[in-house]
Amino acid sequence: MKKIKMGMIGGGIGAFIGDAHRRASRICNDFELVCGVFDVDYEKSKEFAAKEGIDLRRCYKSVDDMIKTELAMPADARMEVVAIVTPNDLHYPFAKKLLEDGFHLVCEKPMTITVQEALDLEMLVAKKKLTFALTHTYTGYPMVRQMRDLISKGVLGTIQRIDAQYYQGWINSIIHGTGSRITGVWRLDPQHAGASSCMGDIGVHAFNLIEYTTGLEVREVLSDLNPVKEGIKLDLDGTVLIRFSDKLKGVIRSSQVCAGEENNLTIAVYGSKASLKWGQENPNYLYMLSDSDTIRIFKPAHGYNEKLAEEGHTMPAGHPEGIYEALANIYRGTAKSIRNQKFTPGEFPSVHDGVRGMKFIHAVVDSNAKGNIWIKV
Amino acid sequence: MKKIKMGMIGGGIGAFIGDAHRRASRICNDFELVCGVFDVDYEKSKEFAAKEGIDLRRCYKSVDDMIKTELAMPADARMEVVAIVTPNDLHYPFAKKLLEDGFHLVCEKPMTITVQEALDLEMLVAKKKLTFALTHTYTGYPMVRQMRDLISKGVLGTIQRIDAQYYQGWINSIIHGTGSRITGVWRLDPQHAGASSCMGDIGVHAFNLIEYTTGLEVREVLSDLNPVKEGIKLDLDGTVLIRFSDKLKGVIRSSQVCAGEENNLTIAVYGSKASLKWGQENPNYLYMLSDSDTIRIFKPAHGYNEKLAEEGHTMPAGHPEGIYEALANIYRGTAKSIRNQKFTPGEFPSVHDGVRGMKFIHAVVDSNAKGNIWIKV
Amino acid sequence: MKKIKMGMIGGGIGAFIGDAHRRASRICNDFELVCGVFDVDYEKSKEFAAKEGIDLRRCYKSVDDMIKTELAMPADARMEVVAIVTPNDLHYPFAKKLLEDGFHLVCEKPMTITVQEALDLEMLVAKKKLTFALTHTYTGYPMVRQMRDLISKGVLGTIQRIDAQYYQGWINSIIHGTGSRITGVWRLDPQHAGASSCMGDIGVHAFNLIEYTTGLEVREVLSDLNPVKEGIKLDLDGTVLIRFSDKLKGVIRSSQVCAGEENNLTIAVYGSKASLKWGQENPNYLYMLSDSDTIRIFKPAHGYNEKLAEEGHTMPAGHPEGIYEALANIYRGTAKSIRNQKFTPGEFPSVHDGVRGMKFIHAVVDSNAKGNIWIKV
Amino acid sequence: MKKIKMGMIGGGIGAFIGDAHRRASRICNDFELVCGVFDVDYEKSKEFAAKEGIDLRRCYKSVDDMIKTELAMPADARMEVVAIVTPNDLHYPFAKKLLEDGFHLVCEKPMTITVQEALDLEMLVAKKKLTFALTHTYTGYPMVRQMRDLISKGVLGTIQRIDAQYYQGWINSIIHGTGSRITGVWRLDPQHAGASSCMGDIGVHAFNLIEYTTGLEVREVLSDLNPVKEGIKLDLDGTVLIRFSDKLKGVIRSSQVCAGEENNLTIAVYGSKASLKWGQENPNYLYMLSDSDTIRIFKPAHGYNEKLAEEGHTMPAGHPEGIYEALANIYRGTAKSIRNQKFTPGEFPSVHDGVRGMKFIHAVVDSNAKGNIWIKV
Repeated sequence: MKKIKMGMIGGGIGAFIGDAHRRASRICNDFELVCGVFDVDYEKSKEFAAKEGIDLRRCYKSVDDMIKTELAMPADARMEVVAIVTPNDLHYPFAKKLLEDGFHLVCEKPMTITVQEALDLEMLVAKKKLTFALTHTYTGYPMVRQMRDLISKGVLGTIQRIDAQYYQGWINSIIHGTGSRITGVWRLDPQHAGASSCMGDIGVHAFNLIEYTTGLEVREVLSDLNPVKEGIKLDLDGTVLIRFSDKLKGVIRSSQVCAGEENNLTIAVYGSKASLKWGQENPNYLYMLSDSDTIRIFKPAHGYNEKLAEEGHTMPAGHPEGIYEALANIYRGTAKSIRNQKFTPGEFPSVHDGVRGMKFIHAVVDSNAKGNIWIKV
Repeated sequence: MKKIKMGMIGGGIGAFIGDAHRRASRICNDFELVCGVFDVDYEKSKEFAAKEGIDLRRCYKSVDDMIKTELAMPADARMEVVAIVTPNDLHYPFAKKLLEDGFHLVCEKPMTITVQEALDLEMLVAKKKLTFALTHTYTGYPMVRQMRDLISKGVLGTIQRIDAQYYQGWINSIIHGTGSRITGVWRLDPQHAGASSCMGDIGVHAFNLIEYTTGLEVREVLSDLNPVKEGIKLDLDGTVLIRFSDKLKGVIRSSQVCAGEENNLTIAVYGSKASLKWGQENPNYLYMLSDSDTIRIFKPAHGYNEKLAEEGHTMPAGHPEGIYEALANIYRGTAKSIRNQKFTPGEFPSVHDGVRGMKFIHAVVDSNAKGNIWIKV
Repeated sequence: MKKIKMGMIGGGIGAFIGDAHRRASRICNDFELVCGVFDVDYEKSKEFAAKEGIDLRRCYKSVDDMIKTELAMPADARMEVVAIVTPNDLHYPFAKKLLEDGFHLVCEKPMTITVQEALDLEMLVAKKKLTFALTHTYTGYPMVRQMRDLISKGVLGTIQRIDAQYYQGWINSIIHGTGSRITGVWRLDPQHAGASSCMGDIGVHAFNLIEYTTGLEVREVLSDLNPVKEGIKLDLDGTVLIRFSDKLKGVIRSSQVCAGEENNLTIAVYGSKASLKWGQENPNYLYMLSDSDTIRIFKPAHGYNEKLAEEGHTMPAGHPEGIYEALANIYRGTAKSIRNQKFTPGEFPSVHDGVRGMKFIHAVVDSNAKGNIWIKV
Repeated sequence: MKKIKMGMIGGGIGAFIGDAHRRASRICNDFELVCGVFDVDYEKSKEFAAKEGIDLRRCYKSVDDMIKTELAMPADARMEVVAIVTPNDLHYPFAKKLLEDGFHLVCEKPMTITVQEALDLEMLVAKKKLTFALTHTYTGYPMVRQMRDLISKGVLGTIQRIDAQYYQGWINSIIHGTGSRITGVWRLDPQHAGASSCMGDIGVHAFNLIEYTTGLEVREVLSDLNPVKEGIKLDLDGTVLIRFSDKLKGVIRSSQVCAGEENNLTIAVYGSKASLKWGQENPNYLYMLSDSDTIRIFKPAHGYNEKLAEEGHTMPAGHPEGIYEALANIYRGTAKSIRNQKFTPGEFPSVHDGVRGMKFIHAVVDSNAKGNIWIKV
């Protein structure tokens, strides 16, 4: 199938999230990165494009340049979709321009700085009939999709309580000056991050996960936020009471300063008949609880899952999706060896490992055939 | 960086392991699939090549054709490495030819059918100074690499016991005729699978994991294998006593008929000072035990890890590598929407989710600013 | 050592919590149950006393009777302490009387119905110099005690966030009429339960656990409670924002209608240097997280624990305290067999199991001695 | 109900297993310890009896004395059952005498030193129609009993593989001289421990657990044992291949030198239809796996369990049986306070904790009633 031509704004050398977008687009194999404005510094942008193997003529100085030049190309060569992976405050101006000029978008979250900007984009997408994807990545996990389908089928009965958590700790060492990591400092600056750090960056993922899995809308919130330390201008921590109706309440808890927490996003939806619990750090386990039955654990790659969940997992059961990255590490070591003509033990299994394996298999078969005696490997 | 040109033998439509190899090569981004013999049925092979976007002239009828035609190309266009992802009995003949003609190889395991074939390949690789990678994929996990490094530094003291397990259940429903899955039947046929099913297919991974992580060589084995059911010609289950020296013993346990086990590969290495335990189904957790200290859990993306482990993980801590596949699912839904001009709720977060998110963030900030009162979302 | 003579109010036939108190007092072996008012129905009370082997003359009609008669006894025969295990509204009147008459008390929680009653008891205890224990049982777990000691030593640095949860589901089937269990209905009646169901019964445990482990006092609260269903007069579910100071906030989440949750009490205390997490359902695991070190798990019966934690665990490491109940089950089966002169297989291991075991041990030793050959058991 | 009068041999001051037996007998509340020979040193034996509150006239110099004197007592005062908790080599001579004189027995395992002795006892028990309980304690866990019942009902189909493990690490520090613990040294002495250390002490538990849960008998074994270190006379580690029939095989793995392992006894039984897995360190979780269904977890105190399992658990779901010991710790602190007239914070919750709790509950209720505002605690 023909690949969709993609441009990218942001995501140059050292940008973690841009790299994640490119990997994801290569994994699904539907996209081809053809152009971009990868860095505000044009030289760095070109350096990145060269490294990535992108035609340098399509590495642009500015988004305006990119739009103008790409629009001038024949339709079958032109970029069709753009991934926006810049700091938060740039999402809106770029998204608006690109939508007006007819480009589909993949945009990092939070989508904009103000609610009005968000409404503008929504209107524009509707008017232009374009595809706009916001990367609430966690909704891509198979078991999150299974959770959504189970709930939509009414398996939980009446929902009675919802509790979502998103705890991280990485800003803790930044505010106390004990870590080496200083990336993300723009997140603490209201001008670039918007009105909120913790809630805008991660609390909103928990919020989205609730609305995605349950199909319900949060009606109102009451929050208590905490900048945690003198001199910090935005919330780094907070709790939000949420209400869906008079009888359905819940809570979102979120923090960026929980020392040692990595990326602890969890959701629990409690219903009158059963409950479902999921956590991001072990994403292949979806727990169903009920008053009278055994605990049940749903896992990917099983016939009992719904269609959307199953399409999102490509390995047989028991192979975490990360196994692709494990295999990619073997491939990477192989590439290094091919390029450098040098084998570094540990980087990939060599032909000698193959010899050892064959000796093992045959010794095992011999031992058994000869009545369970010792055989040298 | 210029990508390495790769050919592939096997791995056409419906072949799970070939797809895994291609995904891995796209993730690490060092390879470009340029040619192949994807299926014994030439028409199916071409169908696959077309779908994959591979130049049909480089979709070959046979491995001989492929070698001859590619060798006739200029060096900078020619394939440099070939991935062999066929049934076991074809590994050796193809590998031998390709090595003789100077191609690097990535080969699925078990490497060959006989030990002699394996030794032949080892000699040939040495003689030709080529790169040969055998895909013992599990050695690509960051925490397996960390385990290897910790052991090589002597952290465990004298190793006293080694216990590895590889339990799967997928053949259970095949032999009892209760499942829908009939793939893999060649694995039960000695002609294609070789001397062993269970030990050859998965026991050997456990064996490799032991030698990889400890740097030790198994000296001798005593096995007890079990075909489990009348009429089965190969082992589907077995236990192997292993010895490294007079005072260091261990065991490999492996089965393909453990009902409900998915891909339960584990290793435990017990030393005089400390012990390490790892399991494939939750690959980001490496447990260290000792007589007198707290249990310690190593996880990827931390400064305390060794270099090889850290290079094998690209996300911040707490993001399982499978998050790339979650994001790829978002991208896939986006591609579908762009192609079909139709948005299917649940497949990716839309601009409306973005609007909801912005309303949430602002309502939360307002509630806090106004003294913790309820605000509508 | 001479046992302390104990009376009990409530806790007769069918009363779960009274049974727990008696078991606990037998386990620690410091008490002897000598008298009581076990039921409002005097006949039932005597029935219980007879079954329990208590002198029927000391099974009283009323608390007043009990006090009067016991006071008339010589000091070395008289009850010294009373365990109050009645519904909530009776705690205060009985406690007051007993304290005034000089008896030590063990009292179930919540201590009283009103704050004023609680203050009265506090004053009385101080004046009379008596021992008053409130059974916040969870503070008796060794790893909770270890958590307290680690925090008091400053291991966490400045505490930045506290999150406690107490989720149960048992009232869910009661309000929906789907379960067989109807006990505990007095808990839904404000007259017997007091001002609150969920917070009074279990939320207060979470609150106590926070103050116990951290040594901090909650300064103020903001709550959102939920009766969940029409016609229910008390909260069955709720979230409480808590504040300790301007920069230290947290949350208590509690529910009795989380379908399928059993007794899911957890606490997480996040500090600037490290964090601690504990959960009641797996009470022997205390997790310490930090920005830069491996995760550490503290377990009971190790030299690295503080004194209070170690004294609270009497088995070697790896034996959950529940092993005593497992052994008690063996003893119970044995008693049944002695009484009935009948052996029911499965209830306890018999002499035949002993024969099998000896055969196993000797076969194993033989097999090894003879060079690893098969030996019949 | 009248308590059964129990004597004890061994189990004096410092003896861990005797203490466990006494606790268990107090928990089940069917026994009363009335006499014993608690130590070979008569003075120490009396010291123990005094501490335990046992009539010193029934603290005997020798087992012969005990038998003779007790037999001379009237039947309703006489001991009826004796718990033997001595080193292994003394089990047989004492058991034989006691059975011959008509006493029921509870005996620690391994039951005897030789197979012949075991057969003697079996014959004697049958002849005398006495109750003989061997304390394979792990068969007393509710979920082990549930496992047995599920298997006996045929839930697993044909059993295809059995794998049991018993790993401990406590002897590791003894043989390397790195720990402070030197108890248990008699276990390394063939004269007192018998033919085996690891297999006799713990491997036999794994063996018993297999036969208990499956109802099958191991037909033959092939073992490979390891003394691990020069100068050690008995096995400290080993693997045992086991066979039940031509098509049913399995393995027992056991070690006392797995550094850091505490008491890691596990069993997995794999059948053609489903599988069951259980581990002693988290004894309330019984996992059922199958080819086509979700993973199911059985827990105690649920209506879905069989009778034997349910009778073995006395707490509501989610309360690990260890909660009795937690409550016993509260009681112990209370006793200490009553005896010493001194309150040590942390040892039990005081009346002040009760006041705090009442303030919390009322503040929470107020906050909710007044529209979710902040209320001081």
